[in-house]
Amino acid sequence: MVDLASRRPVMSNAGLMPTLAVSAVDEHGESRESVIAGERPLTLYLDKREIVTLMTLGTHPELLTLGYLLNQRLVPSIEAVARIEVDWDVDAVAVTTSATIDDLDERLARRTVTTGCGQGTAFGRLTDLLERTRVPATTIAQSRLYALLDALQDRNEVYRRAGAVHGCAVCDFDLDGTPRVECFVEDVGRHNAADAIAGHMWLNGIAGRDKAFYTTGRLTSEMVVKVAQMGIPVLVSRSGITQMGLELARLVGVVMIARAKGRHFLVYNGAERVHFDAPPARQPG
Amino acid sequence: MVDLASRRPVMSNAGLMPTLAVSAVDEHGESRESVIAGERPLTLYLDKREIVTLMTLGTHPELLTLGYLLNQRLVPSIEAVARIEVDWDVDAVAVTTSATIDDLDERLARRTVTTGCGQGTAFGRLTDLLERTRVPATTIAQSRLYALLDALQDRNEVYRRAGAVHGCAVCDFDLDGTPRVECFVEDVGRHNAADAIAGHMWLNGIAGRDKAFYTTGRLTSEMVVKVAQMGIPVLVSRSGITQMGLELARLVGVVMIARAKGRHFLVYNGAERVHFDAPPARQPG
Repeated sequence: MVDLASRRPVMSNAGLMPTLAVSAVDEHGESRESVIAGERPLTLYLDKREIVTLMTLGTHPELLTLGYLLNQRLVPSIEAVARIEVDWDVDAVAVTTSATIDDLDERLARRTVTTGCGQGTAFGRLTDLLERTRVPATTIAQSRLYALLDALQDRNEVYRRAGAVHGCAVCDFDLDGTPRVECFVEDVGRHNAADAIAGHMWLNGIAGRDKAFYTTGRLTSEMVVKVAQMGIPVLVSRSGITQMGLELARLVGVVMIARAKGRHFLVYNGAERVHFDAPPARQPG
Repeated sequence: MVDLASRRPVMSNAGLMPTLAVSAVDEHGESRESVIAGERPLTLYLDKREIVTLMTLGTHPELLTLGYLLNQRLVPSIEAVARIEVDWDVDAVAVTTSATIDDLDERLARRTVTTGCGQGTAFGRLTDLLERTRVPATTIAQSRLYALLDALQDRNEVYRRAGAVHGCAVCDFDLDGTPRVECFVEDVGRHNAADAIAGHMWLNGIAGRDKAFYTTGRLTSEMVVKVAQMGIPVLVSRSGITQMGLELARLVGVVMIARAKGRHFLVYNGAERVHFDAPPARQPG
């Protein structure tokens, strides 16, 4: 980890509480309190120019902003970001760059992943981008994977209370002892959660090469792209995968493990880099 | 239902098989066959102009195209659409209008929901749009809701086989007998599934006023917007809701029922329009 404290942007600390209690009527016709996930619009202004409105849980708005700018390649480097100031009174975040970005028009035109859920992706440019992206050929032991899943067990807090969110985490998995969850973020869209994690890694100068990325959500093309952009070689999901997610995982060389629940998992790409050192006992019958 | 056969667009019939079998390695280090969801890019050209690339399961590409154009208000009416031709050899769909759309630039600039998962929504314009949208004050009986959930029980086919998709349906619920599932669509993104359903309704001249919309996915702001745009007064989800989804449901007057699984559900908006005629027996203890 590199000390980047001296060139960190000045940031607000405007994280919201992720849940709120509302009243709902149950199947007996009785009113009861129910906890739901927050969702707020956050309009991003880059040097006073409106870029996008993100719908977010709002727990990590500064990291989300930073990660979005990074993943969309709208700023050239973290040194270019001077201030990130969130103001929920107007549902906006103002980003000030240290030197005005001359080629912002060009950068905006080149935006590759403008969306989540597969609406709006300029996919041609997306594969072009990944053409030059390869992640390191890391290996992971099954025993470390299980330890990592155990460590994540209790983290999905908003989901357990309110549903309607996806959790994403980046973890160290090759240390002795318990794998360390470097950063865990939940958001109403898994793309926002992934962007906030990218922001955290960028801000703290954390490299992706010895990390695993975990998500509760599905591994579609766009999730694999984001993980590849962070240079993370191991991708683990509680859910399933899609065809294009698999094709992109093969292209960039990400170990792709899905349906990871309890002791079960399926390796869809890179099984030769998984060390099966802890196979569970077989169920009788 | 109005007979619109004479002014239907000419359409290809290029639906893909939704799943494919790939080989994966399980927790015992053994190779086995696994079924995953398809995912293909589909680039939409409107009168030879590139509009967007959607990542889709590909089972209903023509309806998805039609619904997308409708929900984004890129074409003024169905009469304006002459042909929809999907060509998977180039992952593209060509839409030809009967009269060139003069104000396409303006329509493109006004696009309100450019995305799913909350990345890229121009939310200000979105609430403006809903300002004039109100759905009819329909009532629904609990017994009809249960019958509807039972009718949907077996429909989630791709999800059960491959995961990584969301299902959406539009159903009649106020008939005698079994509620009829008018249309059920699964896609890798729930927004695509909702758009395909909008396309089906538009194509067949089906009004939303006596329908219920069901989704396996979460009820975020953008899903409520799509349902409101279809004029559907009852929204049912297997999953949870978000704060902004609830606010928009209140704004347009949609009955919002979430966490609908088995006999359980929670009504978050419009409980006064639910007739509790079939409360389940209470669990002892």
